[in-house]
Amino acid sequence: MDKLLDCVVIGGGPAGLSASINLVNRNKDILLLSLSTNYLKKAQRVDNYLGFYNISGTDLMNKFLEHAEKMNVNIKYGRVLNIYKFEDYFMVNFQNEIIKTKSIILALGIVKNVLIENEDTFLGKGVSYCATCDGMLYKNKTVAITGNSSDIVNEANFLKSIGCKVYFVSTIKPDDLDQNIEFVNGVIKKINGNLKIENIVLNTGKVIDIDGLFILRNAISANTLLKDLKIENGIIDTNRNLETNIKGVYACGDCTGEPFQISKAVGEGLISALNCVKYIDNLKEV
Amino acid sequence: MDKLLDCVVIGGGPAGLSASINLVNRNKDILLLSLSTNYLKKAQRVDNYLGFYNISGTDLMNKFLEHAEKMNVNIKYGRVLNIYKFEDYFMVNFQNEIIKTKSIILALGIVKNVLIENEDTFLGKGVSYCATCDGMLYKNKTVAITGNSSDIVNEANFLKSIGCKVYFVSTIKPDDLDQNIEFVNGVIKKINGNLKIENIVLNTGKVIDIDGLFILRNAISANTLLKDLKIENGIIDTNRNLETNIKGVYACGDCTGEPFQISKAVGEGLISALNCVKYIDNLKEV
Repeated sequence: MDKLLDCVVIGGGPAGLSASINLVNRNKDILLLSLSTNYLKKAQRVDNYLGFYNISGTDLMNKFLEHAEKMNVNIKYGRVLNIYKFEDYFMVNFQNEIIKTKSIILALGIVKNVLIENEDTFLGKGVSYCATCDGMLYKNKTVAITGNSSDIVNEANFLKSIGCKVYFVSTIKPDDLDQNIEFVNGVIKKINGNLKIENIVLNTGKVIDIDGLFILRNAISANTLLKDLKIENGIIDTNRNLETNIKGVYACGDCTGEPFQISKAVGEGLISALNCVKYIDNLKEV
Repeated sequence: MDKLLDCVVIGGGPAGLSASINLVNRNKDILLLSLSTNYLKKAQRVDNYLGFYNISGTDLMNKFLEHAEKMNVNIKYGRVLNIYKFEDYFMVNFQNEIIKTKSIILALGIVKNVLIENEDTFLGKGVSYCATCDGMLYKNKTVAITGNSSDIVNEANFLKSIGCKVYFVSTIKPDDLDQNIEFVNGVIKKINGNLKIENIVLNTGKVIDIDGLFILRNAISANTLLKDLKIENGIIDTNRNLETNIKGVYACGDCTGEPFQISKAVGEGLISALNCVKYIDNLKEV
């Protein structure tokens, strides 16, 4: 934790990988924090990323990862929970491991599902994005879990294993769910409570009383990640150098807006990395 | 000439090729006009275009061309001399062949050498960028030729073959130059004349009286291509959608400014193409 990195890249899609190879290419000491899944893998066929014709999303993603591996990009898989800004560095809370860095590149992708009503109000007051991290706070209590992350079943089973009463709210029941977890068919529409969460309301009208709600999406929402980051309609506000409104924080790829395309993401990964390199090098001179 | 294309892409580097595959991907009827050489071929090793690690510039360019070929991108090699804007279409003068198009994407690369003093003043008054096109105007007259284009020796030999007295001004004498062409070691610094060109002044102080000067660079200068196009310090002015100040004209790649990198060029090729597609589709609705 004491080591101060040059840059932490958050997001392991095309934008984050492009940013990372360019940072490494400029001899920066970096870490790429990635969720274990990437939407690109789901693309059946990609024709418009120059150099590869008629390639599957999985094959292209593997080419990208192979490139990053050959350049010794340091990748850790898991969930970033928060970023805290200090005067001239940042602290990244990565599944409760704290990482110190001079700069940040956000390559978060785009959260397609909107926030649940009151989600931001009850964040930290019953709402959590990581069962592995916060689960123990709810030991033997009643919780609900929802989301489309690939690790959601593991997370649900973990909550059950520590003695929680667990409601799994989804429209699809996964095969490998612990049989003692109660599957509830539906979509959470609203969170109610006072100082902390009290219950959730589903699209079916059903109300469930809970102590905690775990929301596990397959992308990180920028809204809840970094205080004061300027976001409009879910899109991180950047200038042409891909600087955000916070000094030392850059953004690239789908999270900066349309077009949601690989070439745009890869190009922005490069641009954000080169501008971030300038920022880091200027810090050194001080 | 009567056929009205959806788009003409000018420049066959990574930006122009990326724009072209994306236009074809959206079923647009396009033509890519390219000089026969691309600077990328000279790169010894490229490490920072995601998906290819440790690849030579030549191999990468071949991958790009192969991709374009598989998508049936129509490419013509040669020199674009001028673009004329009409109310709702453009005429592109491609080595004296006139091509009609609804829109233009400029992917010109960057002209690294600055203009010769008075070059723009005497353009069309003795200065030409294409011997094949304008040579006959100088039949049996005295001309000089200079530049770094790969076709310069052919162009010089052609001028000699039509009876011109030819001075070849360069710091390197090519092997295959017609032996009746006079090689002059130096760099042209200034063009003098009155209503038309009269002489050129070299860095050595030498003055040569001529009727015509052929400047053959390996990239097309945006300054002389399209009237009223907004350019600052050699960089075409674009907004985030890569629109220029002229409606229907887009720019991408090195000609829009730094960083001069493949990923940025490919990303901008995509962005300019998708915005151009919207422009073309809106025209149709009128």
